[in-house]
Amino acid sequence: MIGSLETAKRLFEELALKSADAPGVTRDSYGDGEAMAHALIAREADRIGLARRTDAVGNLYVTLPGADREAPTLMLGSHLDSVPHGGNFDGAAGVIAGLALLEDLAAGPAPPCDVTLMAIRAEEMIWFPEHYIGSRAALGLLPPDTPDRLHRADTGRTLAEHMAKQGWSPEPIRRRERLLDPKRIRAFIELHIEQGPVLVEAGVPVGIVTEIRGNMRYRFATIRGETTHAGGAPRHSRRDAVLAGAELVSCLEAEWIRRECLGEDLVLTIGEFATDAQQHGITKVPGALDFTLDFRSGSYAVLEAFDVFLRESAAENGARRGVDIALGLKSHAAEAPMDHGLRAALTAAAQRAGVEATELPSGGGHDCAVFASVGVPAAMLFVRNENGSHNPNEAMDFDDFVAAWHVLRAFAADYLV
Amino acid sequence: MIGSLETAKRLFEELALKSADAPGVTRDSYGDGEAMAHALIAREADRIGLARRTDAVGNLYVTLPGADREAPTLMLGSHLDSVPHGGNFDGAAGVIAGLALLEDLAAGPAPPCDVTLMAIRAEEMIWFPEHYIGSRAALGLLPPDTPDRLHRADTGRTLAEHMAKQGWSPEPIRRRERLLDPKRIRAFIELHIEQGPVLVEAGVPVGIVTEIRGNMRYRFATIRGETTHAGGAPRHSRRDAVLAGAELVSCLEAEWIRRECLGEDLVLTIGEFATDAQQHGITKVPGALDFTLDFRSGSYAVLEAFDVFLRESAAENGARRGVDIALGLKSHAAEAPMDHGLRAALTAAAQRAGVEATELPSGGGHDCAVFASVGVPAAMLFVRNENGSHNPNEAMDFDDFVAAWHVLRAFAADYLV
Repeated sequence: MIGSLETAKRLFEELALKSADAPGVTRDSYGDGEAMAHALIAREADRIGLARRTDAVGNLYVTLPGADREAPTLMLGSHLDSVPHGGNFDGAAGVIAGLALLEDLAAGPAPPCDVTLMAIRAEEMIWFPEHYIGSRAALGLLPPDTPDRLHRADTGRTLAEHMAKQGWSPEPIRRRERLLDPKRIRAFIELHIEQGPVLVEAGVPVGIVTEIRGNMRYRFATIRGETTHAGGAPRHSRRDAVLAGAELVSCLEAEWIRRECLGEDLVLTIGEFATDAQQHGITKVPGALDFTLDFRSGSYAVLEAFDVFLRESAAENGARRGVDIALGLKSHAAEAPMDHGLRAALTAAAQRAGVEATELPSGGGHDCAVFASVGVPAAMLFVRNENGSHNPNEAMDFDDFVAAWHVLRAFAADYLV
Repeated sequence: MIGSLETAKRLFEELALKSADAPGVTRDSYGDGEAMAHALIAREADRIGLARRTDAVGNLYVTLPGADREAPTLMLGSHLDSVPHGGNFDGAAGVIAGLALLEDLAAGPAPPCDVTLMAIRAEEMIWFPEHYIGSRAALGLLPPDTPDRLHRADTGRTLAEHMAKQGWSPEPIRRRERLLDPKRIRAFIELHIEQGPVLVEAGVPVGIVTEIRGNMRYRFATIRGETTHAGGAPRHSRRDAVLAGAELVSCLEAEWIRRECLGEDLVLTIGEFATDAQQHGITKVPGALDFTLDFRSGSYAVLEAFDVFLRESAAENGARRGVDIALGLKSHAAEAPMDHGLRAALTAAAQRAGVEATELPSGGGHDCAVFASVGVPAAMLFVRNENGSHNPNEAMDFDDFVAAWHVLRAFAADYLV
């Protein structure tokens, strides 16, 4: 095995060991878990002899200098945080692949331009309720109140407090300061495990992403009816939050299927759906239910139309059943098409490397979408992965990682001329 | 106001104060809250000069001796425990009404037979997952393994441990020993707040119960699918526990409405319905959902038919969606018709007392059903109550309690001849 792939294998193992939190791993955004992973990558960069720096918000940049230091940089990158009890490869695979490529390139002649790995902070929205914090902070795209408005779900402390505790500064975000100049980035490539089963079902190790789906999310939706005794209340007098919620969910699922039949791109997830553990009971009509909604599409028109359907359904259902259905704050992450030239170059690289690859959309959001949104040519490579991601059973075969890495290497060989 | 009603008013206030646990009150079964309430009733019995004793499992009996001590007893009673953060009147109203009646009768000539108030232990099933523990223990009706099989929901400790800690013995239950002889009970009358809105909607202060509905309950139903990433998984590959659960609930609601249209007596409650707080998240397809089911009817045939429908729906839904729907252990409490002679006597008593009363079924289960099941002539008086029960907003007007108490008093005057 190539030495840099031995590095990759060793780093995956060390990362899993140091962030183990059964079941799975936990690397908390702007917490000790993420910091451990960044320190590990920095240590390896030093060992290889690569240049490195961090920006004020904690993103790590590892660079192999090019012959022309003024030429725009080829940037590789992904994130190092994970969801609680998640898998070891979501995010980390892209960072480790980038480091292994730099180690490999470092053994040859200097490339024509800088090649930089960016290890990004805080991509997993489960910790702080905001998309792509690290990459958007680097590009000056976060609302200035973000550090003080966002509270981490587990600790309740603000993003500003978490950043400061880890030695980073919220000031650039508050000033909307741009820490990276998009014009200085020639291309951004993110390697990532596939979070769905498409590659597994197709029997293909590597995917080339056509577009990253946008999403709309309601994180704090609630249904409020009336808690009352399960036996005495006749049906017509009940204001049952579970019956209302179940009808709403079934109604949204039917609309999803209808749009799918029309050929529209859409996925819908109600990830949290729960009566109030402090108040509910087997002999009580449930008066309170909290839930989340996440729907994604490559088309903004589909997201918008589904959102209208959702709001109308919730209003009609609530009025008819005498319950209040409040969807709460909505977030929207824009969809991002991948660069056609880079997609073609990656397809050609896969052929040269002898690796079977197929095109597919990305259902999950990725930092790569942020770079695309500011006009940086951007592309993604997916690695086949079983059992989805954001769970401890995530399973990427190392051989598939090797195959994807060889595509990345063949791409770089052709691109860096 | 009659002195014994002043006693009642004072006892309601003291009970609320001593079991306050905002919001509402908590009097835990075989815990300190219930023990406090029993001590309070015992103290008042002593003050009035009534005889009292406890049985080995902790039920309290307060007796006004009759002229013929060998004649079967007129028994009044209800329970003193509450759900967590419940209301002050559920159960306690019947015990306090009985005590006030004994105080009132004690001022007159001795009745022809003993009149006994029974303050019953552990009626609220939310603490230990078993119906009517105190009354069934007294009548030797509990399975012998009950003290060691049941664990209290909050402490995890067994019924046997909780009984022992409070100074009571699980031995009579283990030996199926009968502590009360049904043949020695001439009638059992339970006064209780209505747990539904029927009396409020009818504008009538007092109800005379026609029958106590039976119920079937599934306390530990689960749906197990697969937790996976919300974005990547196409619809057909998902094994979504919330979508499956929502469809099942909507399907059961439709069947409920259908049976109601056919004139069948049925109520359905899914009181707990929740994704796993340790694992769920807005960006994860939910793989696990836990829920409870409670359905009630005056007809065993309706319960049985609905149960068959439930099982068939769950099996079909689970197979089609690739999720496991496990209903788990079922409990069944038999329906109990109230004694016709006692119902007629209570109706006549209401007329003599000048209190408006109406007949209605009891949706909730009550200890009274246990006495009915062993052949004791049994009846119930309901007191109008707003906002249902098993919640802190339960609201019985004291004037309505007084009206119901006058019906009880008029009944006793006619019955005790």
